[in-house]
Amino acid sequence: MAVLALDIGATKLAAGVVHGGRAVREVRQVKVPGEGVWEACRGLLVEVAGAERVSAVGIGSAGPVDVRSGVASPLNIPEWRDGFPIVAAVQELFPGAVIRFAIDGACLALAEHHLGGLRGLRDGLAMTVSSGIGGGIIIDGRVAVGRTGNAGHIGHIVVPGWEEPCGCGGVGCVEAVASGMSSVRWARSRGWGGNTGVELSEAARAGDEIALAALARSGTALGQAISSAAALLDIDRVVIGGGFAESGAPLWDPLRAAIAKHARLGFTRGLRVVKSRITNGATLVGAGVLAAGHATADEYD
Amino acid sequence: MAVLALDIGATKLAAGVVHGGRAVREVRQVKVPGEGVWEACRGLLVEVAGAERVSAVGIGSAGPVDVRSGVASPLNIPEWRDGFPIVAAVQELFPGAVIRFAIDGACLALAEHHLGGLRGLRDGLAMTVSSGIGGGIIIDGRVAVGRTGNAGHIGHIVVPGWEEPCGCGGVGCVEAVASGMSSVRWARSRGWGGNTGVELSEAARAGDEIALAALARSGTALGQAISSAAALLDIDRVVIGGGFAESGAPLWDPLRAAIAKHARLGFTRGLRVVKSRITNGATLVGAGVLAAGHATADEYD
Repeated sequence: MAVLALDIGATKLAAGVVHGGRAVREVRQVKVPGEGVWEACRGLLVEVAGAERVSAVGIGSAGPVDVRSGVASPLNIPEWRDGFPIVAAVQELFPGAVIRFAIDGACLALAEHHLGGLRGLRDGLAMTVSSGIGGGIIIDGRVAVGRTGNAGHIGHIVVPGWEEPCGCGGVGCVEAVASGMSSVRWARSRGWGGNTGVELSEAARAGDEIALAALARSGTALGQAISSAAALLDIDRVVIGGGFAESGAPLWDPLRAAIAKHARLGFTRGLRVVKSRITNGATLVGAGVLAAGHATADEYD
Repeated sequence: MAVLALDIGATKLAAGVVHGGRAVREVRQVKVPGEGVWEACRGLLVEVAGAERVSAVGIGSAGPVDVRSGVASPLNIPEWRDGFPIVAAVQELFPGAVIRFAIDGACLALAEHHLGGLRGLRDGLAMTVSSGIGGGIIIDGRVAVGRTGNAGHIGHIVVPGWEEPCGCGGVGCVEAVASGMSSVRWARSRGWGGNTGVELSEAARAGDEIALAALARSGTALGQAISSAAALLDIDRVVIGGGFAESGAPLWDPLRAAIAKHARLGFTRGLRVVKSRITNGATLVGAGVLAAGHATADEYD
């Protein structure tokens, strides 16, 4: 009997086999195709299951999701923009299996809470800062789910100072200002010639002024959004993963400066923001924790 | 045997007797004195208890609080700025009683969840907009407590467009922009001659341009903060009480316009913000619900 984990990300799909309730091995992944996203997920799941019967599948998906109806409609998967019934599809593939479904941010929070920087804490925030910005909340010892399963959408906290249009249709969301993709767009509009977040981070480390300004802008906005979340949730630990969080001091110094400026209530003054140590596939790891049955409100740890 | 409720507000102290687990009667209240705040609380509690033995007391206090140590340190009570051990003091007054303690915003959320606009919902936000701005969160069917009991501090979400210094030591908090007191200060700095939030609301209704601009500014900032909270928490219902929320269309129209602009994710698009119908002492009512034993995570409704 195998327990599987599936990660439906903004740029890639990944699946693996869950061992011992937490480690995910035999991982296979592909880029999100323009068409046939479900067929690609099915292919991965069938491949990692091999000849074993499947007893449970944990699915983490980029948001928004609707966990009540088992539907995923990630902003960055146009084919699924109107919603894809992922739970029903996986259930049809493995009729006897228990299917558990959560937004990627909740999986991230589960992974950090079980194995990473939020371990042992009753309250905390896990974030990813890469092409987009997402997150998940631990509050009063449990992962917050929310009305439709979308709690943790920190990427759409409105931040001061910018009026950028956001992919969600809103304006001034931290994702529209501070994500890798948004930072690259901003730097390019000011004449920087690179194309990716990785290149932007490297340019900043090499002293490029536009790149440095882009990362300072991102870090400041992230620090503001984190300060807002810390006040609202009464948390003092935030763990950030994702590729763009690897940008080093040019991102982290302005982030910490913004927190020093804004997180001034007694209970937020000790706020610590640290880099995730789960370097590889935290969402998939969290989907594995989910599959192992830890994430429903009452069972959960 | 009597169950008592105590509300330690920013401007007044109130106490009463809890009937049937929710209604609070025989209410007595006084303004927060400059000195002798605890003596004033004690006087109210002793008066409402009368000759009865006290079995339980629910205490709601303006924040910040530390529910782990039972200490209140409301920003607006200078005498308690370094923290007053309210739980120990009330316990000493009524040695046999069960003492339950929460921030005012959590009490507000309890009141709205049991008796008001959040009834029957698993997720929602209760707010007060008066001299200050506070709130409480219902998430996954329970009142969020947070690490130190301060979850729900929506007044310190950072909002775009202003760099006002806040009482918390931070900058740009929605409380520093949008509370009754902040709005009065802003209007006065532009030449308006009144002194209170009530006067400001009346002036706006009478067409005073500075007053209208002050309320538009407040409503916009509130709508931005609410949109941020709705994305982070996945809620679609917000209930607002407090005197300044009685300002009518000059406040509510810009508030709703800001929500229409910012709350654009699928799961926040149906966000409804309504005025509280608990017109009298929602925090005290919530402290009563708390006293009746509903608020600890597992017992709670």
